Amino acid sequence: MTERKRKVEVCLSPALYNEFSNDDAIVVIVDILRATSAIVTAFMNGVKSIIPVATLDEALAYKKRGFFVAAERDGIVRDFADFGNSPYNFKRELIEGHDIVYSTTNGTHCIMMARNSYRVLIGGYLNLDALVSYIVKENRDLVILCAGWKNKFNLEDSLFAGALAESVLRHDGYTTDCDSAHASIDLWNLARNNMMAYIDKAAQRHRLKKNNLDDVIAYCHTLNLTSVIPTLENNYLTLVKNNQ
Amino acid sequence: MTERKRKVEVCLSPALYNEFSNDDAIVVIVDILRATSAIVTAFMNGVKSIIPVATLDEALAYKKRGFFVAAERDGIVRDFADFGNSPYNFKRELIEGHDIVYSTTNGTHCIMMARNSYRVLIGGYLNLDALVSYIVKENRDLVILCAGWKNKFNLEDSLFAGALAESVLRHDGYTTDCDSAHASIDLWNLARNNMMAYIDKAAQRHRLKKNNLDDVIAYCHTLNLTSVIPTLENNYLTLVKNNQ
Repeated sequence: MTERKRKVEVCLSPALYNEFSNDDAIVVIVDILRATSAIVTAFMNGVKSIIPVATLDEALAYKKRGFFVAAERDGIVRDFADFGNSPYNFKRELIEGHDIVYSTTNGTHCIMMARNSYRVLIGGYLNLDALVSYIVKENRDLVILCAGWKNKFNLEDSLFAGALAESVLRHDGYTTDCDSAHASIDLWNLARNNMMAYIDKAAQRHRLKKNNLDDVIAYCHTLNLTSVIPTLENNYLTLVKNNQ
Repeated sequence: MTERKRKVEVCLSPALYNEFSNDDAIVVIVDILRATSAIVTAFMNGVKSIIPVATLDEALAYKKRGFFVAAERDGIVRDFADFGNSPYNFKRELIEGHDIVYSTTNGTHCIMMARNSYRVLIGGYLNLDALVSYIVKENRDLVILCAGWKNKFNLEDSLFAGALAESVLRHDGYTTDCDSAHASIDLWNLARNNMMAYIDKAAQRHRLKKNNLDDVIAYCHTLNLTSVIPTLENNYLTLVKNNQ
């Protein structure tokens, strides 16, 4: 008896997710600059849980209930917030053991739209190898959901989708007939040996630079700083349990 | 006084078009395998006009009114139709001087969604250089709208978008900050010297092969067979007027 091969697919924008929705799949949410890189960093530094919220109003409501809140818009930390959205804000001494609220419009939307899948994971270069090991062990279809920018394709998320898709497809039992997976893998291989020069083309890099937030770009493209994998449980993010 | 530069953007799927809609732009519709290649071929062979319709019911209604109709699904010509949807069906002796109806679900949807733009053009490798000359002469923003496959990204349309975007961007006065334009150009440059090998990855190639329709693939990737440019006027396609 031959087992059905597991599919690897890349969804280049949340606006296309309806075409990829798959209740049996692991869905990895990717928002390299900066939401998923920041969330992985927070768990690396000992946060207990993260509640992702889409609006500043929701963030403020949690703040009033006593939660630590990360909230900024256009690079400016909101006055009610404890810190901004940059991965650099999530220092161990500030967050270890705490539940925190993270305000991210694109990221929260993607996380919630995938909630009916088998499992939602939060990914980035920072935990790439850990993701691959976990995904292959679970032996499920994989959908890589790029948060993009306001529903548009973006380069930085697509390159990472290529890195993850290629790494999973190297394992027995995985296949793809997804054109966006092929394209992402080719773009990743074009960029991988000179990532910072390649990312210089990306619109988000220029948006961050304009707001003096581009110091995080190299950090967010660092490979395998940690083996933590955040996952969605009900409405909050926590660590996956059977991760080794 | 410095003139504002013209923007070049690539929309990788009709499901993303809302983010690109621009009343002042020329929009080029791309469905390389096979709708826009077939439409360009029909004008090259002397068709008078083409009425694009989305459903077989609409095609049948036109047939009853005496129109020539191209209609197939899954590679099988419909019994009421005069011919199928392949570019090879549009022979000069069959279509010269006629108005014909062309049934294409994806293609018609894209053409109609862009109808409020400055001008809608039908493009492919077959008329690439003519498109570039016309676009540059008109000196407008450019949106390249890939028909994709059932709202998903596809390789063959994105590669052509890269070819067209790169050619227009070589001219003074054009710029892009569109990540999907950068990605399409990079994919085009990766593929251009060995297009048939590259296209072997594309899902649509395998769909066509399964239905013995893959004989059109090389033809649809032939550069500059013609200088005709079909455009939308009201609900039908005709030749652009000031094309030289």
